[in-house]
Amino acid sequence: MSYSFRVALHDTDAAGVVFFGHLFRHLHDAFEHWMDQLGYPVDQLIRGGEILLPLTHAEADYRAPMRHGDRIVIELALSQLGDTYFALGYHCLRLDEDREYTNGGKLAATALTRHCCIDPECHQSRPLPDSLAQALRLHLPAQE
Amino acid sequence: MSYSFRVALHDTDAAGVVFFGHLFRHLHDAFEHWMDQLGYPVDQLIRGGEILLPLTHAEADYRAPMRHGDRIVIELALSQLGDTYFALGYHCLRLDEDREYTNGGKLAATALTRHCCIDPECHQSRPLPDSLAQALRLHLPAQE
Amino acid sequence: MSYSFRVALHDTDAAGVVFFGHLFRHLHDAFEHWMDQLGYPVDQLIRGGEILLPLTHAEADYRAPMRHGDRIVIELALSQLGDTYFALGYHCLRLDEDREYTNGGKLAATALTRHCCIDPECHQSRPLPDSLAQALRLHLPAQE
Amino acid sequence: MSYSFRVALHDTDAAGVVFFGHLFRHLHDAFEHWMDQLGYPVDQLIRGGEILLPLTHAEADYRAPMRHGDRIVIELALSQLGDTYFALGYHCLRLDEDREYTNGGKLAATALTRHCCIDPECHQSRPLPDSLAQALRLHLPAQE
Repeated sequence: MSYSFRVALHDTDAAGVVFFGHLFRHLHDAFEHWMDQLGYPVDQLIRGGEILLPLTHAEADYRAPMRHGDRIVIELALSQLGDTYFALGYHCLRLDEDREYTNGGKLAATALTRHCCIDPECHQSRPLPDSLAQALRLHLPAQE
Repeated sequence: MSYSFRVALHDTDAAGVVFFGHLFRHLHDAFEHWMDQLGYPVDQLIRGGEILLPLTHAEADYRAPMRHGDRIVIELALSQLGDTYFALGYHCLRLDEDREYTNGGKLAATALTRHCCIDPECHQSRPLPDSLAQALRLHLPAQE
Repeated sequence: MSYSFRVALHDTDAAGVVFFGHLFRHLHDAFEHWMDQLGYPVDQLIRGGEILLPLTHAEADYRAPMRHGDRIVIELALSQLGDTYFALGYHCLRLDEDREYTNGGKLAATALTRHCCIDPECHQSRPLPDSLAQALRLHLPAQE
Repeated sequence: MSYSFRVALHDTDAAGVVFFGHLFRHLHDAFEHWMDQLGYPVDQLIRGGEILLPLTHAEADYRAPMRHGDRIVIELALSQLGDTYFALGYHCLRLDEDREYTNGGKLAATALTRHCCIDPECHQSRPLPDSLAQALRLHLPAQE
């Protein structure tokens, strides 16, 4: 799944590039977009009150500066799936000057988020609902 | 000009609705999008170093809650144009459940931003460049 | 009541000054600090579930740039009190180079927020609870 | 070095806890505070134009929910020091109900940031300035 955004003024800081912490907003937007496509919009999960999928881990490696106005494509893929959790990998590609997404762009950042399924009442981990686990399984890399 | 976004988890707060201050990020995204279409991308203005267009005033009226997952359409229009400044008006419409933008949606917020043209060197106000003033003039409401 | 903060890197943008929208986070921090001192912590109001105090209006005038590392003092005062709402005025003072708060600093921004008391269940406005109204009344400017 | 903050309404999201990405703002505030104490305020480094210290890596593990109003203490320590980079480790402790920092609190999150020294002109890595390297060396854990 891919998701794109343009670096806004408020994403940058006085050093002239994206403030590292603001990238996580965009990664989560990509995650929400992915969950929508999977049929499990995060807003409905939260309102439904059956499960929450909070992050237990997040990390990013910053490889090339992202500047105001740059078009960034986030490629997202499921990287791990357990009974009570899953993890997603992200590639953030900075498109070339001509703003066309032909050659995949320059790798500006990679990232990883790990999400744990918990019961909203007791805040304890619980197994992913069967239907969600099944939907996720279809997205696991082939070799697994 | 209209610009839309979906309310992300990070736009909301523990009271369950959009945190009022986060709306200004989206208003500025709409402004940047509008300046792109006008032919004056804000990132190029900042890098060009000829002028800056900082906000001297911003205000918003919140009329109906915007919740996680809501689709919001921002309608933006130039409302004032002076020698050294301009002002923009915003209508934020929350689309109906069915997520179609047919009847214009529910008015969730209105807003106003005023931008002053300054010289980046001395931080004093200066007239808008002729070409930008001309481009803006085409967008003034007819009655003026 | 006064509240101070230092302009962080993430408060600024590529134009080198505080992004206008980020100021509202700090204004709300000052508001939360003020409500704490009043004996009505906002977190407890939200969790208590009796009332919410969402903003119905927010505005700011930006008068002088606030840069990374600047120490800002926010002076906050109640400016209006009605049966179902109240409004607060803010002065944001930028301290001088020597970082001492002796002469009151340079006025960098003024702002206003208006808060409406609503019932969290039906999202309709309701009168402020008596005890809160009484606590607020003590903070009204003398001439009123 | 320790740095504390209170979880603000805008730090939380509709799930009722701190949005994971917003924690990085606070971690960076702690980093800026630490650099101040070291005698190398980040704002002066950026304005000085000799070096920049962008993050090349950031990660966090979320262990316990942080809620609106919680008092969080961030303990920060230098964990690695190379010729051109350094890394910092963070412990985020959530204080008990009584808001006293007696028993160290509950470990709510751990985190790591890695900072690379670069030349602002060419955006290539360069050795840390001697004086900064020396100041950092004093903060390395004893066993190294």
